[in-house]
Amino acid sequence: MGMQIADRMRSMNPSAIREILKASADISFSAGNPDPETFPAEELGELAAGIFEREHKTALQYGITEGYGPLREMTKKRIKMKYNIGTDADELIIVSGGEQGIDLAAKCLTNEGDAVICENPSFVGALNDFRSYGLRLVGIPVGGSGMELDSLERALKTEKRAKIIYTIPTFQNPMGVTMPLERRKKLYELAVKYDVMIVEDSPYFELRYSGDRVPAIKSLDTTGHVLFIGSYSKVIAPGLRVGFVSGPGELIRKMTVAKQGQDVHTNLLSMMLVAGFLDKYDLDAQIDRCRALYRAKRDRMIAGLERDASRHAEFTRPEGGLFIWGMLPAGYSGRELCAYTGKRGLAIVPGIAFDTENEPENPGFRLNFSMPSLEHIDRGTAILGESIREYLRLA
Amino acid sequence: MGMQIADRMRSMNPSAIREILKASADISFSAGNPDPETFPAEELGELAAGIFEREHKTALQYGITEGYGPLREMTKKRIKMKYNIGTDADELIIVSGGEQGIDLAAKCLTNEGDAVICENPSFVGALNDFRSYGLRLVGIPVGGSGMELDSLERALKTEKRAKIIYTIPTFQNPMGVTMPLERRKKLYELAVKYDVMIVEDSPYFELRYSGDRVPAIKSLDTTGHVLFIGSYSKVIAPGLRVGFVSGPGELIRKMTVAKQGQDVHTNLLSMMLVAGFLDKYDLDAQIDRCRALYRAKRDRMIAGLERDASRHAEFTRPEGGLFIWGMLPAGYSGRELCAYTGKRGLAIVPGIAFDTENEPENPGFRLNFSMPSLEHIDRGTAILGESIREYLRLA
Repeated sequence: MGMQIADRMRSMNPSAIREILKASADISFSAGNPDPETFPAEELGELAAGIFEREHKTALQYGITEGYGPLREMTKKRIKMKYNIGTDADELIIVSGGEQGIDLAAKCLTNEGDAVICENPSFVGALNDFRSYGLRLVGIPVGGSGMELDSLERALKTEKRAKIIYTIPTFQNPMGVTMPLERRKKLYELAVKYDVMIVEDSPYFELRYSGDRVPAIKSLDTTGHVLFIGSYSKVIAPGLRVGFVSGPGELIRKMTVAKQGQDVHTNLLSMMLVAGFLDKYDLDAQIDRCRALYRAKRDRMIAGLERDASRHAEFTRPEGGLFIWGMLPAGYSGRELCAYTGKRGLAIVPGIAFDTENEPENPGFRLNFSMPSLEHIDRGTAILGESIREYLRLA
Repeated sequence: MGMQIADRMRSMNPSAIREILKASADISFSAGNPDPETFPAEELGELAAGIFEREHKTALQYGITEGYGPLREMTKKRIKMKYNIGTDADELIIVSGGEQGIDLAAKCLTNEGDAVICENPSFVGALNDFRSYGLRLVGIPVGGSGMELDSLERALKTEKRAKIIYTIPTFQNPMGVTMPLERRKKLYELAVKYDVMIVEDSPYFELRYSGDRVPAIKSLDTTGHVLFIGSYSKVIAPGLRVGFVSGPGELIRKMTVAKQGQDVHTNLLSMMLVAGFLDKYDLDAQIDRCRALYRAKRDRMIAGLERDASRHAEFTRPEGGLFIWGMLPAGYSGRELCAYTGKRGLAIVPGIAFDTENEPENPGFRLNFSMPSLEHIDRGTAILGESIREYLRLA
């Protein structure tokens, strides 16, 4: 048959990153994966044994869409106490990874043809999801302090159909930059003024390696204009697919209905494993272990870039998260650089993947430091330096 | 703020069934849950222990969107060998429960305002999901042999924007009826003639308790007009949230892209548990155990209805699946009957929940026999009989 594909999906193609991940490379700076050394496998294995022994009738049966009760309660309490996230008017739903939170927000807040204002560059999974709802992406430039607010306000003034401001304010993907508190306050004020919902995507916010913590935008929210998306993927394990969303009750209830039509509820065994981990182990200590490991890797990559590649490209110096962003001089593209690193066995992700306009000439490229070993970081930055020099005809 | 909810979600409310499930009742005929006695908890517990010991780095890490490789291969091979499902032009994707398969199909095959032709009554989760994409539901009456094809052809002739024929041909939810082979062939021919994709939803198709097996519509497909959705929820455990979809490669690839934007991939631990079960245990023997238990329960409920309630209502006699459908005489509604059973402590699901038009006067009601104990089945059918007599003023 001549397959009649939906308009919304016709131009949608597999994520460039996920395709890159399927290709083999000796050294990969391309994934956004946590280091499996950080997975608390022994603890989770013990918890699983207990669940299969005593609670398998709950774990293996259907559950409610909102999520496993004890996990919801512990998550609510933890983010309220530690980060002042969530008000009395807010609710919390467990989702199958933060990505599902983004998807449900888009489904419940937008109509086809509406606009999403987002950082440019931004998380490709979110951009593609927005595109799949027939939404227009209005990209706002990102500097060292995050989304540029003058540009944001211009967009809010002119774009009458903006329904979401999508931001990753802390250790942004792909750039690694963090928005300071003052700018967060102004961003929130703009959202209130123009009555647009902020979707604050914060999968990395607990992975800080240096500098002072910056409060979540959601912690400033007194008017129900912020939806906070968090995840256990980066601090426990992504394979479990457990995240959470805190936001205004009315919206969370709609998202719950939308989730019923997607996966009915998040995997119960996983929700019980995370709940058990929160209850019986020390998540903060687990996060500290992640931070120690990733701090060393970040420092090693920054040092390697400094040594091998900084003469002909610029790099961000993130205080946390998983990524460093590189920028070639004007006139050179990250996509072309990828071909040079690829033939030397190093995979990186070109800026085009994160570009709201899919701009092939985007001069940026993303480097992940959480997954490669220290030795791979050393070898990879050396390859990157050689590749840049070759591409720029400086060798 | 005045929350700006998407048009598509504005009229969407929580599934009546899931709300009924949250309410407490002494006896429930309302869920669609498998009996937890059927869960192979010991086997899954052993498999989990092995995974946490030897394969935790795979189980806890990100995976590919298509699903865990060994599970895809074993599922493909099994459904091909046993049921002739899947051609060389077809692909298979693992989904987070069959519901996600329905959602991804709707997302990839339809535009807002298109029509889905479906059985009336039909699975509420699918109907609500279609509604959430702004689709019009064209309900086709269901008789003892499934969807009525004269009515279907009239709909196909007049409805120019029909993109999906959604059917549960085997042990239909909620009616329990099965479409015979001859009718399946004609249904498939109509789909080819009018070039509309059949979405064959078959979560129960291996749960047959009597009568002869009827081939899947998908097994007749030589033209790429059938998408087959299957699930491990009813034969292993629903909490794992693992289902699968077999269909034309082009469509499955689009669904893969759409799934990337939902949950990135299905829970890896669950996929590995199911793969382990298929590899190391005997799924057919497990299904035989389910069938033996459910056959006894079905027989007990049929006998109870015959004894207690058949004078004033009609009931289907399903050869498999989880549900029996009751019909009150004209002028009486399932919804009102629910109030009578509810005050006696029996929960049933009114026909309105499955009605494509949300018709409050729908005279039907759904009874589940897989979850209640034999004793509850006896007490429940007695309550149902009393309730019907009271409602019909026959007491």
